[in-house]
Amino acid sequence: MLILGLDPGLGTTGWGVISAQGNRLSHIANGQIKTDAKAPLPARLLALDAALTDLLLLYKPDAAAVEEVFVNANPQSTLKLGQARGVVLLGAARTGIEVGEYAARLVKKSVVGVGNASKDQVHAMVTRLLPGVTIAGPDAADALAVAITHAHHMASARRMSTT
Amino acid sequence: MLILGLDPGLGTTGWGVISAQGNRLSHIANGQIKTDAKAPLPARLLALDAALTDLLLLYKPDAAAVEEVFVNANPQSTLKLGQARGVVLLGAARTGIEVGEYAARLVKKSVVGVGNASKDQVHAMVTRLLPGVTIAGPDAADALAVAITHAHHMASARRMSTT
Repeated sequence: MLILGLDPGLGTTGWGVISAQGNRLSHIANGQIKTDAKAPLPARLLALDAALTDLLLLYKPDAAAVEEVFVNANPQSTLKLGQARGVVLLGAARTGIEVGEYAARLVKKSVVGVGNASKDQVHAMVTRLLPGVTIAGPDAADALAVAITHAHHMASARRMSTT
Repeated sequence: MLILGLDPGLGTTGWGVISAQGNRLSHIANGQIKTDAKAPLPARLLALDAALTDLLLLYKPDAAAVEEVFVNANPQSTLKLGQARGVVLLGAARTGIEVGEYAARLVKKSVVGVGNASKDQVHAMVTRLLPGVTIAGPDAADALAVAITHAHHMASARRMSTT
């Protein structure tokens, strides 16, 4: 099955598609959607939605996964992030696929093995878990990490149900 | 022309449609969209989007207007509000209509005459400016107020361009 990981942001939204066959993971594609900081907010949200819709049509993922966000100390940043996140969650949910949300600690634990792993450690482990991947940027790395988390989560749910 | 005012929120989104012919305003409809607090976030955003889409199809407004938000001191509330706001702005923008954003002070000044008017004063003036209106609730009142602000804004822009 194909899993689309997403790391939403108004300026940059990271995305990554992986294939999960049981415990075997492989990289399909990843990238970053950027919106024009000079454009009005509704236009930026439209651009984000259009790019996400293209991805959903192109890869037809079976599930999507999004990190539960770190709430920024700056309320204006939190509002911007929330607006982008609303559009991204809606876009994924509109296609009828399951949309999982995972806490940042769980993503780190899932990918690196410890909940307080650094961004660099996550990036390095994503590269090892998905041989041959070229990562488009830090937000794409985070998106791949949350997709991997979703895959691990499903695998353990399956293990539990077959024992 | 028809103007749709919106006061977004994840729990309750107020909306109001008014007709503006030059300086003459009249009430068309107003209401509040509620989402189920027990449902997962993607499902709540889908429900909000579906209800908004119904409104846009039913009333076919020529413009939409949204209040620039008061950023809450609670970051989790700000994030929730942002997510709902992103969905609402996207929904309106997707139909290709203009989406105006107005600061809270400007809305109060436009409706009551002073920028520090109370919520009750805004509610009372909305009732006077739109004879015969029955307001569905406080969020619907705020939505009508921002629609009125958009109408006043257009009227003054027109006055300036014809002198």
